[in-house]
Amino acid sequence: MSFQIDFQPLGRRVDVEPGATILEAAQSAGIGLSAVCGGVGLCGRCLVRLAPAAPVSPPNEDELTLLSPEAVAAGLRLACQVKLLGSVRVEVPPESLTAPQRTQVEGEEEPVDLAPEITAYELILPPAALKDLRSDWERLADGLSARGAPRPQRPRVRILARLAALLRANDWRIRVGLRRDEVVNVAPPETPLLGLAVDLGTTKVAAYLIDLLSGRTLAMGAVMNPQIAYGEDVLSRISFTMENPEGSNLLQKTVVNALSELAAHLCAEAGRKPEAGRTGAYDPGQIAEMVIVGNTAMHHLLLKLPVRQLGLAPYVAAVSSPLDIKASEIGLDLGPGSTIHLLPNIAGFVGGDHVAMLLATGTHRKKGVVISLDIGTNTEISLAAHGRLMSCSTASGPAFEGAHIRDGMRAADGAIERVRIVDGRLEYQTIGGVPPVGICGSGVLEALAQLKLAGIIDGRGAMDKDHPLVRQGNFGLEVVLAAATRTRHGRDVVLSRKDISEIQLAKGAIRAGLTILLKHAGLEPDDVNEFIIAGAFGTYIDVPSAITIGMFPRLPRERFRQVGNAAGIGAKLALLSSPLRAEAAALAARIDYLDLIQEPGFTSIFAESIGI
Amino acid sequence: MSFQIDFQPLGRRVDVEPGATILEAAQSAGIGLSAVCGGVGLCGRCLVRLAPAAPVSPPNEDELTLLSPEAVAAGLRLACQVKLLGSVRVEVPPESLTAPQRTQVEGEEEPVDLAPEITAYELILPPAALKDLRSDWERLADGLSARGAPRPQRPRVRILARLAALLRANDWRIRVGLRRDEVVNVAPPETPLLGLAVDLGTTKVAAYLIDLLSGRTLAMGAVMNPQIAYGEDVLSRISFTMENPEGSNLLQKTVVNALSELAAHLCAEAGRKPEAGRTGAYDPGQIAEMVIVGNTAMHHLLLKLPVRQLGLAPYVAAVSSPLDIKASEIGLDLGPGSTIHLLPNIAGFVGGDHVAMLLATGTHRKKGVVISLDIGTNTEISLAAHGRLMSCSTASGPAFEGAHIRDGMRAADGAIERVRIVDGRLEYQTIGGVPPVGICGSGVLEALAQLKLAGIIDGRGAMDKDHPLVRQGNFGLEVVLAAATRTRHGRDVVLSRKDISEIQLAKGAIRAGLTILLKHAGLEPDDVNEFIIAGAFGTYIDVPSAITIGMFPRLPRERFRQVGNAAGIGAKLALLSSPLRAEAAALAARIDYLDLIQEPGFTSIFAESIGI
Repeated sequence: MSFQIDFQPLGRRVDVEPGATILEAAQSAGIGLSAVCGGVGLCGRCLVRLAPAAPVSPPNEDELTLLSPEAVAAGLRLACQVKLLGSVRVEVPPESLTAPQRTQVEGEEEPVDLAPEITAYELILPPAALKDLRSDWERLADGLSARGAPRPQRPRVRILARLAALLRANDWRIRVGLRRDEVVNVAPPETPLLGLAVDLGTTKVAAYLIDLLSGRTLAMGAVMNPQIAYGEDVLSRISFTMENPEGSNLLQKTVVNALSELAAHLCAEAGRKPEAGRTGAYDPGQIAEMVIVGNTAMHHLLLKLPVRQLGLAPYVAAVSSPLDIKASEIGLDLGPGSTIHLLPNIAGFVGGDHVAMLLATGTHRKKGVVISLDIGTNTEISLAAHGRLMSCSTASGPAFEGAHIRDGMRAADGAIERVRIVDGRLEYQTIGGVPPVGICGSGVLEALAQLKLAGIIDGRGAMDKDHPLVRQGNFGLEVVLAAATRTRHGRDVVLSRKDISEIQLAKGAIRAGLTILLKHAGLEPDDVNEFIIAGAFGTYIDVPSAITIGMFPRLPRERFRQVGNAAGIGAKLALLSSPLRAEAAALAARIDYLDLIQEPGFTSIFAESIGI
Repeated sequence: MSFQIDFQPLGRRVDVEPGATILEAAQSAGIGLSAVCGGVGLCGRCLVRLAPAAPVSPPNEDELTLLSPEAVAAGLRLACQVKLLGSVRVEVPPESLTAPQRTQVEGEEEPVDLAPEITAYELILPPAALKDLRSDWERLADGLSARGAPRPQRPRVRILARLAALLRANDWRIRVGLRRDEVVNVAPPETPLLGLAVDLGTTKVAAYLIDLLSGRTLAMGAVMNPQIAYGEDVLSRISFTMENPEGSNLLQKTVVNALSELAAHLCAEAGRKPEAGRTGAYDPGQIAEMVIVGNTAMHHLLLKLPVRQLGLAPYVAAVSSPLDIKASEIGLDLGPGSTIHLLPNIAGFVGGDHVAMLLATGTHRKKGVVISLDIGTNTEISLAAHGRLMSCSTASGPAFEGAHIRDGMRAADGAIERVRIVDGRLEYQTIGGVPPVGICGSGVLEALAQLKLAGIIDGRGAMDKDHPLVRQGNFGLEVVLAAATRTRHGRDVVLSRKDISEIQLAKGAIRAGLTILLKHAGLEPDDVNEFIIAGAFGTYIDVPSAITIGMFPRLPRERFRQVGNAAGIGAKLALLSSPLRAEAAALAARIDYLDLIQEPGFTSIFAESIGI
């Protein structure tokens, strides 16, 4: 006898013998559940959620120690402690995973009524004949009208160019993609009609290929944003365009190429899946609609809009309203007539990706007090409270991306991402389980929290020079995270006093933004009913550590929600549903943008926020 | 004492002594009035029109012999016979000119209420500031709304791209070109807003540069259609695209380049005129709207639409409705957001140029029975009768353009364009007055009429082999038009029996079209109240000769009107006035297109029409 364990949202199933733990089941399914303590119920990282009355062992003492009563009531358990007594469905929060895929494209997602901008019509038209000399376009327009569709207006040259051969090669049968009153795609009968949702980040570009007829996600994937070669962050790319006459061109071309390759790659991948039936059944020419979300600078650089004014006070965008453009306008060669919809920008430093995140998380619809944030070089924070929606952007800097940290690195194989100090010994876990190379943002965050909990650093971030883990380095006091003998490059991986200061500045900026938003709403941190953390970095951070170092307010654990790539999900929703797209525009329009720099108390609030 | 003579529509003035003739005045003004007979009142070519009671000598016997009483009543006179007794204004019909400029851009034109698609707004916007963080686009949109303009929608990337620098360089002052609810042009304050009207012919491209704020024509000009290098006529260009994979691309690029150069040339010319005030004040970036008219094939080749089906029965167009496209869609680099409007096509062989001609001549509005035609390789003919509008296209072939004629040539310097047989002697006149090289279409037409009148050819086109002007050539009987001793190349310029047959086929096709249209309307030729001849060739033909050879019905001379480049004027009207543009669409929609090939009696009517 064996039980079937169903891991969600990963969609993996595995059969196990009675009495096995959920952690063991996960390991046999190849799912990388966090277990820094080795599965002995000490680290509290292997958190999973079960349905009430699931056939498993009841919570044991270890669990009741580590989990709050609210958490237990919500069905949270430690995977290493739960013994399986029957078949169950296990929900794995993203934060419990050891980053099997660090280009985050997954995210929490709810079903949505399919109502895309584009409708497909399969038409059979009467052939041109001596007694029926209508032009190809009028014939098509009449055919659509006869089907009750809006009569198409403003025919596009590239659509007209395909029509003649297409109609004659397919016995006057055709599949038409109609966007309101515009024909945006024509193809042989029964050709798929595709959409592409893109989260265009400063560092990575994530995309979802969608079948617009079924709403099904056919493939998803991500690549690095190749603009990185011209500047790691937004400001250095802005400088690049100002210092190089061809800079804007170059940045646009490089990202357009990446989108084009990603589209081709996802089509190929979708075509390889057995359920597609036919290999190569999909191609980018079938992509009739794209939704792209990104921060204001990525949005502007994609469109080759000027960015100089984004880098200078008062930091205004060239455009903030939602845009519908043709893919061909930016040199993106998809289907003829392909439209790109760009979600609205809120301000120079709060872009459409934040709007998409709010849409996906439903922040703007919620009744109570909700904070939603997306941590990056700039951290965008929104506060929804009693019908009001406020947003700000805070300059948290690149420390969380590993920059300005001596041994810092991006979240890639070999990065220390989990740190624990157990009985005075420092333990770590690396991405990919390989020997360490450096430490990524979430690792630094945890290291700081652990050093604080162990009393090795004080509230100002100063190190206890007499602690055995602290030593005098060339540039001051430092903690050795991994000794040279254990690292891949044979050098110590350390955390210095300066590194700690960098993190203090970063987390201080975020906490100051939170404080000021709450102050404007006349609220206290305790009033926050839900605290939503979106984005790749946000998915992997350890929330208790973030609380420990004072980055987040001390709220009950269950009020936090790590939602993965909500911006990408928001883009997908805007692709699948016109009403949701309109909702995004409406929510963006009602946001009050708070410019922190203009806030009278900002400097002192920031100063207060950098303590640990 | 001298009088001032004002020649219209040429706009030239000259002072003459009392008693001089109008022909002498014209000669001293450098105006090439036709005078084949040398100004002795015999040829009747130097027709001009004077106002009633103009201070001139009364009609003499020669005039009363050559002119009908109706013509005299309408103020028509022979310039060589009229003695000037005071200052007068002389109207010179195009047909009285010896083609001083054979790329026809002039045409009859009536004043029109200025109501272009685009409105210019001069705005002064509040600068971006910490307390006013609106994006540049929203600021502009608000500024337009405040001026009562429609709120602009769907901002275009290329407009957005210019906005930031433009606003900041001009103290937040800007000139905006608004097309309905679309911003199509932005520029520094007080920049001109231009339009370009283009008649895109198979052989030549004529264009008018218009100030959209004043309606003034700033410059006009014409160039050969460079597609000629890939095929002289429509069908050979269609073949070229079918035989060469890159053919369509090449034909599009070559004509787009020509348009681009023409636009630059006209801007430069407009800037050189003293009234422009500043040299170089105009540039193609200020061209916000173009109207292009052309036959269906030129229309399709410009847009790189498929033309294969235009060359095959049932000869249907890819599109017939009016089109608004962006200049950038065809690679034409004008102002960002520049729109090209293309007048509707009626059928595969009746294009927007014919619609423009009907618009300019007002054919569709007239009360009586009106024929309008434009002679070319295909001759498009429309009949307006009692509220009905019918059109057909007839394959008149390239003979009138000098092709398929042994010594045929285009209407260029050295072409024999006028022929008279006086007292058994053959006299001719060449374009430019230089020694002859060949004969152009209008010359052949006249030669034929003169040979018929002199009894040298009979009703079937057969030559009288015993006539002194007829000789036996290497390929049959022929008439020597100019002997080798007088030609530029030292060879005889002759007219052969085969040449006569070619012209018979051409004029037969036209007459058959006329006959069938009239038959369908239940009318006789005599019922035609007005017979409008448009286009370059039509401007230069001798109407009596055309009647003599049976190409046109025998109607009183004053019912004929030679209107010059009416298609170009129609394009200009559609540029200057949105209501007229709508009128063009409406008139095109109500035209009944008659396919002559399907006409049961076509073959026999054609056979009857080729006799002289």
